[in-house]
Amino acid sequence: DYQHVQVPFEITLWIMLASLAKIGFHLYNKLPSVVPESCLLIFVGLIMGGIIYGLNDKSPPVMDSDIFFLYLLPPIVLDAGYFMPSRPFFENIGTILLYAVVGTIWNVFGIGFSLYGICQVKAFRLQDVSLLHNLLFGSLIAAVDPVAVLAVFEEIHVNEKLHILVFGESLLNDAVTVVLYKLFRSFCEMPTIKTVDIFAGVGKFFVVGLGGVLVGLIFGMTAAFTTRFTKDIRVIEPLFVFLYSYLSYLTAEMFHLSGIVAIIACAMGMKRYVEANISLKSHTTVKYFMKMWSSVSDTLIFIFLGVSTIGENHEWNWPYICFTVIFCLIWRALGVLVLTFFVNRFHVNTITSKDQFIIAYGGLRGAICFSLVFLLPDFHRKKLFIAATTVVILFTVFIQGMTIRPLVDLLAVKRKRESAPTVGEQIHIRFLDHLLAGIEDISGHWGQYYWKDKLEYFNSKYLQKILLREYDQPKSSIVLLYEKLERKHAIELAEAGQLSHAPSHPSLLCSVFLCGSNDRTVVMDKKLEDTLNPDVLENIQEILARNLYRIRRTGPAYNRHTLPGEMEPVEHAKEILILRHKSL
Amino acid sequence: DYQHVQVPFEITLWIMLASLAKIGFHLYNKLPSVVPESCLLIFVGLIMGGIIYGLNDKSPPVMDSDIFFLYLLPPIVLDAGYFMPSRPFFENIGTILLYAVVGTIWNVFGIGFSLYGICQVKAFRLQDVSLLHNLLFGSLIAAVDPVAVLAVFEEIHVNEKLHILVFGESLLNDAVTVVLYKLFRSFCEMPTIKTVDIFAGVGKFFVVGLGGVLVGLIFGMTAAFTTRFTKDIRVIEPLFVFLYSYLSYLTAEMFHLSGIVAIIACAMGMKRYVEANISLKSHTTVKYFMKMWSSVSDTLIFIFLGVSTIGENHEWNWPYICFTVIFCLIWRALGVLVLTFFVNRFHVNTITSKDQFIIAYGGLRGAICFSLVFLLPDFHRKKLFIAATTVVILFTVFIQGMTIRPLVDLLAVKRKRESAPTVGEQIHIRFLDHLLAGIEDISGHWGQYYWKDKLEYFNSKYLQKILLREYDQPKSSIVLLYEKLERKHAIELAEAGQLSHAPSHPSLLCSVFLCGSNDRTVVMDKKLEDTLNPDVLENIQEILARNLYRIRRTGPAYNRHTLPGEMEPVEHAKEILILRHKSL
Repeated sequence: DYQHVQVPFEITLWIMLASLAKIGFHLYNKLPSVVPESCLLIFVGLIMGGIIYGLNDKSPPVMDSDIFFLYLLPPIVLDAGYFMPSRPFFENIGTILLYAVVGTIWNVFGIGFSLYGICQVKAFRLQDVSLLHNLLFGSLIAAVDPVAVLAVFEEIHVNEKLHILVFGESLLNDAVTVVLYKLFRSFCEMPTIKTVDIFAGVGKFFVVGLGGVLVGLIFGMTAAFTTRFTKDIRVIEPLFVFLYSYLSYLTAEMFHLSGIVAIIACAMGMKRYVEANISLKSHTTVKYFMKMWSSVSDTLIFIFLGVSTIGENHEWNWPYICFTVIFCLIWRALGVLVLTFFVNRFHVNTITSKDQFIIAYGGLRGAICFSLVFLLPDFHRKKLFIAATTVVILFTVFIQGMTIRPLVDLLAVKRKRESAPTVGEQIHIRFLDHLLAGIEDISGHWGQYYWKDKLEYFNSKYLQKILLREYDQPKSSIVLLYEKLERKHAIELAEAGQLSHAPSHPSLLCSVFLCGSNDRTVVMDKKLEDTLNPDVLENIQEILARNLYRIRRTGPAYNRHTLPGEMEPVEHAKEILILRHKSL
Repeated sequence: DYQHVQVPFEITLWIMLASLAKIGFHLYNKLPSVVPESCLLIFVGLIMGGIIYGLNDKSPPVMDSDIFFLYLLPPIVLDAGYFMPSRPFFENIGTILLYAVVGTIWNVFGIGFSLYGICQVKAFRLQDVSLLHNLLFGSLIAAVDPVAVLAVFEEIHVNEKLHILVFGESLLNDAVTVVLYKLFRSFCEMPTIKTVDIFAGVGKFFVVGLGGVLVGLIFGMTAAFTTRFTKDIRVIEPLFVFLYSYLSYLTAEMFHLSGIVAIIACAMGMKRYVEANISLKSHTTVKYFMKMWSSVSDTLIFIFLGVSTIGENHEWNWPYICFTVIFCLIWRALGVLVLTFFVNRFHVNTITSKDQFIIAYGGLRGAICFSLVFLLPDFHRKKLFIAATTVVILFTVFIQGMTIRPLVDLLAVKRKRESAPTVGEQIHIRFLDHLLAGIEDISGHWGQYYWKDKLEYFNSKYLQKILLREYDQPKSSIVLLYEKLERKHAIELAEAGQLSHAPSHPSLLCSVFLCGSNDRTVVMDKKLEDTLNPDVLENIQEILARNLYRIRRTGPAYNRHTLPGEMEPVEHAKEILILRHKSL
C-alpha cells in the first residue's frame, strides 16, 4: 500500500539521504576542508539527477519553488537571524543597507542593460530578448544568496566585520529583489508603462522592507510575551519560538512583504527576551533544533539544486551565458569599489582593499535565483534564462566557493578571533559605549551610540517589564556570562570527577559564615527564615553559633600554617573555608 | 496572497491555538488538577466546532484519518515507546499480551454479538444491521486507545505495574485491532466467507504483530548503527532518531503491518545504543522534542476530536447507542475479571481486585476508534456507527476520565513511588536478577530471567560491538547513574553560586596530592605526562614538590585546629585540602 504513505515516506527518505550524505563527507576528514560542503552536495545532486534521468529517460523533477520558499528557506533564515551577532550587525547597518539596496539596484540595472547591449549584436541571434526581459533577468540574477554565502563563509572564518557585511547584504537584499522582480514581471505583462508605475515601484521598497521589519517585530514581541506564561509547561516552550517566527514569515509573504526581513526582525527581536524566559533545557533544544533544521534544509536545497540542473530545461547560447557570468562579476566588483569609496570617506574604520575583494568575490548566487527563474511566466526564452542562471550558480558556488579559501589564505585577510572576549574587554566595551553615547548626546550628533542608548533605555523601562517573567532581577550581561562560565566549569569538574562532595548545606553555611564576619548576619537570617523550615533553621543556627565562636577564638591566635604578616582580613575568610572543610 | 501560504499558515495557526489553549489551562492551576486536560481540550474543540458550525451553517471539517494516522499518531507512540519503562514492561509482557490479544478479541466478539442481539429486537428498528457489521463495529470500538489512556494515567500516578498493564495493552492491541478491523471489512465486501479465510485471518495476527516488531527492530538497529558515525556533525544526530522511527512506522503501514508495534519496537530497541552514541545536548534535544511533539499531537487530536463531533454526521438511535456504552463497560469488566483469574493462578505477585477495577475502568476509547469509524466504507448505517463511537469516546473520556482520579483516591490504590531507586536497591535488583537467572538455568525452567540473561549476553557480546562508538569503555549503569548525579549536583551548585572558584589545575593538583601520600605518584605522573604539555607539567611538578615538602613537615606537628586525638590518616587528606585552599 505504497500510495497511502507515499508523501511522508518520500519526504523522510530525501531528508535521510541528505543526512547520510552529510555523514559520508565528514567520515573523510580531508574532503570538507578542501571542497565546501555545498559543492559536494550539488555534486551528489548532479549524480542523482543523472541516475534518475538515465533510468526514466525524462527530466528529473525540479525543485518546486513553493516548497523552497515555504518550507526550506525559512529554517535557514531563522537560524541566521537568531544567531546573528547583533553588535557588528548594527554597527555596520549603514554599510550593509548601502550594499543591499544601492548595490543590488546597481547590479540589476548594470547587468540588465549590458545584457541588452549584447542582445543587439546580430551574430548572437538574441534580438528577440527585450530590455524588460533582460532587466527581469538582471533582477533575479543580481541578488547574493544568503544560503550559499552562509555555507561558504562559515567555513573560511574571515573577520567578523567582513562576514557581517557580505552576509547582512545577502539577507537584506531580499526586499530589493522581491520589489524589482515583481515590478519587472508586472511591467512585462503591462501594455504600456507609465511614470506613475515607476514611482510606485520606488515607494514599494520602503513598504516591503519596513513592512517586513514591522511584521517581524510584532510577532517577535508576541512570542516573547507568550513565553512569559509557559512556566508550568516547559516542554512546549521551544515550539513558540518556531511557530511565531514561521508565522511572521508567512504573514509577510501573504502581504507581499519581505518574508526574509520579517523572520530576521522577529528572531532578533525576540531572542533576548525568550532566552531570559525559557528554561535552560528549552533553550538548548531551541538552539539545537534550529541548527539541525537549517542544516537539513541547506543540504536539501543544494542536493535539489544539483538534481534540478540535469534535464531538458535548458537552451544553450554561448555568448549570452558567458556574458552573464562576466557581467555578474564585473558589475559586482565595480559596485563594491564605488560604494566602498563612499563608505570609507565617512568612516574611520575603513574597509581595506583586500576586504573589498573578498566582498566582491563572495557574491555567490544560489537557490533563490534558481527558484525565481522557475517562477517566471512562460515565454519563449525562459529556457535560456534557466540555463544562464544555472551556469551562474554553478560557477559562483564551484569556482568562487572553492577558490575563496585559498585566496583568503593568500591575501592574509584578517581572520576571526577565535577566543571569546574576556570580562575585562566586555566591561571596557560597555564603558566606551556609555561614554560615546554621552559624547554624542552633548555634541547633538544623533549617531548609533545615541540611538542604542535610547533603545536600551526604552527596553529596560518598558519592554522588559512587559515581556520578561522575572523582571525583579535584571541581570547584567556580565553576571550572565559569569553564571554561564560557572555552570560550564561545574560541568567540566563533574565530568572530570573532581567535584568535592560538599553537600549543599555546608556551602550554604559557609556563605553565612562569610557574612557573619561583618554585620550582615541579621539580614541573612531574615532571608533564611523565609526559605527554610524552622527545624532546619534551628539546626543551622546551632552550628552557626558553635562555629562563629570558634572563629572568634582561633582567629587571632598563633597559627602554624600562616606567617604572622599574612594575617590580613582576607585571611579571615580563608580560615572559615578551612574550618568548613574540616567539618566535612 | 492568502492562497499561496494557506496550507502552512493554517497548520501553524492550529498548532498555535492548541499550544495557547494548553498555556491557558495551566494559568489556572486548579483546573487541570480536577479535570483531565484531554476533557478540557475536547471541550475547547466542541466550542470551536460550534462556532464554525454557527458561522458557516455547515458541518466543520472532520479530522482526516490520513492526517491522524500519518502525522499525529506517530509522535505520541514514539514518545510512549522511547520513554517506556522497559523493566516493568518486560516483567509483565505475558499479562499485557493476554489482555491485548485475548482481551481485545473477547471484547470484539462480546460487543459484536450482543449488539447483534439488540438489533433483533423489533421495537428498536435496527434489524437491517447485519452480524458482520456489528462485529466490524465491535472491532473498532473494543480497542483501548493509547492516547486517551496516556493523557489520563499520566496525571493520576497509579503504581507502575498497573500503569504498564493498561498502557501496554492499549499499545499492543493495535495489532489485533488492525487485523480484526481489516478482516471484517473485507468479509463485509465478500459474497461468501470460507473457513480458509477465517484461518488466514488468525494467521495474520502473528504476521502483523511479529512483522511489526521485526520492522521496528531492523530500523532501530540501523538508527543505532548510523549514530556511530555522527561524531563530527552533532547537530543532525537527533534527526536520525526521528527519521528512522518514522520510517519504521511508515514501512510497517505500507506492508499492512502494525505501525504502532513497529515504532515501539524501534524506539525501545535503539534507545540504549543511541543514548550512548549521541552527545548529551543531542540527547536533551531528542527527549525534549519528542515530548514537545507528542504533547502538541495529543493536544491537536483532542481538539479535533471536539471539533469533529459537531455536525450532521450523526444518526441518533437511543437503544443502540446506550447499549453500546453498556456493553463496552460490561464486556471489558468481564474480560478483565476472567483473564486476571487465570493470570493470578500462575503468578505470586497477584493483581488485586482494586487493580482489576482500575484496569477495567481505565479502558478509555479515543481518536483511533474515531478515525477508524470514518474510514468505514459507505453504507446506510455508517452515521449510526459514527454517533455511537462519538458517544462512547465522550463517555469514557469525560465520565470515566474525570471520575478515575477520585476513585483511585477512594479505593486507596497503591500509588507510584516518587523517589528513584537508590544505588543500594539497584545493586540488589541486579544481584537478584543474576541469581534468578542462575536458578532458572539449573532448574531447566526457561523463564524471563533466563531469557533476559541470554539477551544481555548477546547484547554485550555482539550488538554493542557493532552499534556503539566507544565500545572499549562499557560503563555499568551504576557508574552512569553516579556520573549523572555528579553532573546534576555540579549544575545545582553552580546555579546556587556556591561553587568554589578552584580553577581546574589546583583540583588536578589536589588529586595528585592525594595520590602522593601513598605510592601511586609514579602512575599518576605517567598519566599526566601523556595529557599535559612539558612546561605545564614542569610547573605542576614544581608546585607539587614544594607542597608535598610542606605537608611532610607540617603534618605531624602540633596544630591548633585539630585535637590531638583526631589526627587520623583521613585527617591527612583534609590537611591537603586546607593547603590547597590557602594556595588559591
